[in-house]
Amino acid sequence: MSETPKAEAFSENSLRLAEISNPSSEIVHFPADQPLQLDCGGTLAPFSIAYKTYGTLNADKSNAVLICHALTGDQHVANEHPITGKPGWWTTMVGPGKPVDTDKYFVICTNVLGGCMGSTGPSSPNPDTDGVYGPDFPVITIGDMVRAQARLMDHLGIAQLLCVIGGSMGGMQTLEWAAKYKDRVFSAIPIACAARHSSQNIAFHEVGRQAVMADPDWCQGRYDDEKKLPRKGLAVARMAAHITYLSDQALYRKFGRNLQDRDAVTFGFDADFQVESYLRHQGVSFVDRFDANSYLYITRAMDYFDLAADHDGVLANAFTGTKTRFCLISFTSDWLFPTEESREIVHALNAVAANVSFVEIETDKGHDAFLLHEPELFDTVSGFLNAAAAKRGIVGDNAGGR
Amino acid sequence: MSETPKAEAFSENSLRLAEISNPSSEIVHFPADQPLQLDCGGTLAPFSIAYKTYGTLNADKSNAVLICHALTGDQHVANEHPITGKPGWWTTMVGPGKPVDTDKYFVICTNVLGGCMGSTGPSSPNPDTDGVYGPDFPVITIGDMVRAQARLMDHLGIAQLLCVIGGSMGGMQTLEWAAKYKDRVFSAIPIACAARHSSQNIAFHEVGRQAVMADPDWCQGRYDDEKKLPRKGLAVARMAAHITYLSDQALYRKFGRNLQDRDAVTFGFDADFQVESYLRHQGVSFVDRFDANSYLYITRAMDYFDLAADHDGVLANAFTGTKTRFCLISFTSDWLFPTEESREIVHALNAVAANVSFVEIETDKGHDAFLLHEPELFDTVSGFLNAAAAKRGIVGDNAGGR
Repeated sequence: MSETPKAEAFSENSLRLAEISNPSSEIVHFPADQPLQLDCGGTLAPFSIAYKTYGTLNADKSNAVLICHALTGDQHVANEHPITGKPGWWTTMVGPGKPVDTDKYFVICTNVLGGCMGSTGPSSPNPDTDGVYGPDFPVITIGDMVRAQARLMDHLGIAQLLCVIGGSMGGMQTLEWAAKYKDRVFSAIPIACAARHSSQNIAFHEVGRQAVMADPDWCQGRYDDEKKLPRKGLAVARMAAHITYLSDQALYRKFGRNLQDRDAVTFGFDADFQVESYLRHQGVSFVDRFDANSYLYITRAMDYFDLAADHDGVLANAFTGTKTRFCLISFTSDWLFPTEESREIVHALNAVAANVSFVEIETDKGHDAFLLHEPELFDTVSGFLNAAAAKRGIVGDNAGGR
Repeated sequence: MSETPKAEAFSENSLRLAEISNPSSEIVHFPADQPLQLDCGGTLAPFSIAYKTYGTLNADKSNAVLICHALTGDQHVANEHPITGKPGWWTTMVGPGKPVDTDKYFVICTNVLGGCMGSTGPSSPNPDTDGVYGPDFPVITIGDMVRAQARLMDHLGIAQLLCVIGGSMGGMQTLEWAAKYKDRVFSAIPIACAARHSSQNIAFHEVGRQAVMADPDWCQGRYDDEKKLPRKGLAVARMAAHITYLSDQALYRKFGRNLQDRDAVTFGFDADFQVESYLRHQGVSFVDRFDANSYLYITRAMDYFDLAADHDGVLANAFTGTKTRFCLISFTSDWLFPTEESREIVHALNAVAANVSFVEIETDKGHDAFLLHEPELFDTVSGFLNAAAAKRGIVGDNAGGR
């Protein structure tokens, strides 16, 4: 597995390169004779899944909780991020004494298939060439991501997950797990998600992809070979997406029409307004930690997600026979995945008499609320997870070792 | 006034060039000794305002209705568009027997200052150089646009407008007219607008501008000199903006997750979904009729709009002493200019005891509803305008010539 082409290609981005070459995570390499079946009909081999774990797996391997990350997240849930140096993306939720208590549960988070933090994706070496996959990487789906995660669980000897939890695209993976691996998911917490990607969300993703592809430094996806990076295009894509993660009210509360380090508008195109400065920063800093092709592939996977599609459009049929305990959570000001989308899932689960609870949390923080300080979210996850653990027969801390 | 540089520069775009060189509109040229004062502190001279009129001005010039267009609109309200060949953008609203009845009223619509359909803007010849203004055009405001319109009214000898009507940015102009030219506006219909541009809307505009500026063919705004056009960047900007003009529901109703001329997804990055194909078309076709720098300047003018800013942040003070009759209209599914923004204006007008009515129209069509078939909109405008005309002493058709 030659890393050389990549090393040269991401010379602009040495931190990310170093991380990809030597990820600060566990990593499982599935060799060429153990291919991953893909929804597109092809296979991927070899392939690798990078992951982090927190806490201790108990003796009967019944206390494993899988966290599924969102579009631009990764496996670094509760540790300092190796590239950005920032705290993990869900330190509010996961850790000792936190709602997903690592003193009690064995927490796993994988970098998704198609990602760029160690799991195989478009920036991984292509075994058929001297370079990386780039645009030759197969178009993957949420189903493929979950199938790869299931392979990791096989590898770890975990037959059943106590809980699968995720927000946004992580929620889609959670639903996919519950639908496709009914016996392997004791409980599931899909947060701020939907059973299919809406027209509006596909539209926003398409804008982002077109922004990346419009950048001449994208080089038809072969920027790595050309030793370029579509920095501007990816930054624009991130800016557009970032607006959708917030809410009108949250933006108003944070920024209003406040000016950035000036007393009056400049009658120019500099970032006069704080909201402009903030967005530009979001765009520019994103490029340093994320691969442009991964962005294209993962957005596409979300667009393709439609859990009812294989069931004649009847979502309930995706869950027929489920014994999983579900807790769905949505946020009032989330306009990317509005409450109505969660409610449709609840209705489908009700239709198959599933064990389901549903909490809509009042907040003005928009879609990003699932990543922020939301006490009602923490209480809900904590309460549901502990009840599931009790039902599963896990009591006290994992030292009990049932 | 040499047109040669522009003629060469827009060689890719001969239709728009022909229109700019020889607009199918009336046009008033204000010479160098009649400069336009700008809010940035400078002046603009010479300058031109292109406009269309419909109907007949009555003898005492009391039946004039000014229509103000939105961001990417122009003066071609009710006639075939000279570039696209499509019907005028508000043929549902303006024409013989229509709510703004050209058998009764003399309707005027100007291309806004900063625009690209005959009024002076960044693609106009710069008197100080051999080329066009490009990025040397001054940053203009909604106030500047309205000041230029007022100069046109002076030129036409119209002391008072029977009504000023506009949606979106047209609504901002309408509010600016009513606030700054209180004696010249008998009635006003601001539709789907706000008294200041919100953080979220500034954010979306900033994304669009960054998309344009990220295109190397933008050439720091001097694409005209370089004989290029930032087609891809402007198309991405338009795509992002277009989503905000619709609603989640409208997109779902129109497109759902329907595929474009195929039975199954292709596992690729073509426009699998109809909504992608539609958006791409919106982006590509926009470039043929609109100037990229105009897009930057006009979005900036909207960002800067904050009617209360000159009045210690108290919007009501902008309307002190008004005698204008107001009718505000908003749409339930408009998330770009939500009803709440109109309601704030209504509250401010109430605070100064203005004559104001307010209608929130139930529709799922989003912001674009003001351009679409909305019977309640037509009835509201028609009823209000006829009542204003009666109050103003205009009866029957304009042949009465009061």
